[in-house]
Amino acid sequence: MKYPNGKKASEKFTKKSDAPHHDTSRRGMTLESEINKSNEYYLAYKICNIHKKPTPITIVNVSYPSRNKAKITEAYFKIPSTTDYNGIYKGRYVDFEAKECKSRTAFPFSSIHAHQIKHLADVLEHGAIAFIIIRMTYYNIDYLIKAEDFLLYYNSTDRRSIPYDWIKENGYVIANTYLIPVDFIKTIDDIYFKEDLDDQEDQ
Amino acid sequence: MKYPNGKKASEKFTKKSDAPHHDTSRRGMTLESEINKSNEYYLAYKICNIHKKPTPITIVNVSYPSRNKAKITEAYFKIPSTTDYNGIYKGRYVDFEAKECKSRTAFPFSSIHAHQIKHLADVLEHGAIAFIIIRMTYYNIDYLIKAEDFLLYYNSTDRRSIPYDWIKENGYVIANTYLIPVDFIKTIDDIYFKEDLDDQEDQ
Repeated sequence: MKYPNGKKASEKFTKKSDAPHHDTSRRGMTLESEINKSNEYYLAYKICNIHKKPTPITIVNVSYPSRNKAKITEAYFKIPSTTDYNGIYKGRYVDFEAKECKSRTAFPFSSIHAHQIKHLADVLEHGAIAFIIIRMTYYNIDYLIKAEDFLLYYNSTDRRSIPYDWIKENGYVIANTYLIPVDFIKTIDDIYFKEDLDDQEDQ
Repeated sequence: MKYPNGKKASEKFTKKSDAPHHDTSRRGMTLESEINKSNEYYLAYKICNIHKKPTPITIVNVSYPSRNKAKITEAYFKIPSTTDYNGIYKGRYVDFEAKECKSRTAFPFSSIHAHQIKHLADVLEHGAIAFIIIRMTYYNIDYLIKAEDFLLYYNSTDRRSIPYDWIKENGYVIANTYLIPVDFIKTIDDIYFKEDLDDQEDQ
């Protein structure tokens, strides 16, 4: 488990890395609403410009109860062909999917559509900063998994899920604060913009 | 009017730049569907990864006529807080809005929501390639207007629209082919990735 500041889990939690976080302030808020809140903060302070895409739907019927108001009366959810979040940070294109995981032991691949995995691989080829945020709800820890790492595992396994041990080993724990409940930009800074610094620290 | 190859309108159309294009193959297809078709081509050939965002809606009621099928029975359109299109090209974040304009003489600012103009200014600050595609339907010409140019005009005028003369002077004509009906990537190449070359040609 890689911590935001580059420290390994063992340095911080020795033997307790499986202990649930009891951050009651977060209780009841979904990962999506917390990422949205974080993005609003980032936007207001001009840190980055990242948005959740609207839910894709197919509209079948629209009625016009009054002249200026269109009411959708029949529509269906579509399978998304891209991830839910994208935008720009420090000139770089950023793209990610976010999922909550209730299992204590593994993250099932079925949580992410095949289209979305293909999309992550594609934007990566074009030079994106691409990743998946997984909230392990039991432990109440959010992990950032680089798309590179995720795809490597996904393409080399016959398993239907990623073991939590792999996530702890390869994921980066995302900090949370009251103002920025899912501070993934801090994590991006540590991973993608401070590699030189980390190299120095490791020596 | 700047042509894709850097030539000025006068070199190509002398005195005829106002003449309507009679490209009948295009008739009946909307700008949106043509941009989507172009994006599908770009995606298939790994040229870029740009998508239209789904239409933002507020869902009020969902029913479940069968176990696996959710039917949205009441929803309303929301005002978008971002532009419709974004993605990645050659490692750069790309962001744009596309509008058809029926007027022969001017493009009304009311066609674009204030939120979207603010959004363009914001992503520009973060280093995006940002622009507006305007289809002048009478002339059947698609123009790419750099967000920088658009914002400069928008912020310095009391007018409620951009005159067509300004669009011809400052916009870049977007090429259209059967496979790529709105070939804005070619235009991006000419504007953002060939500036050195253009400078040489101008000498």
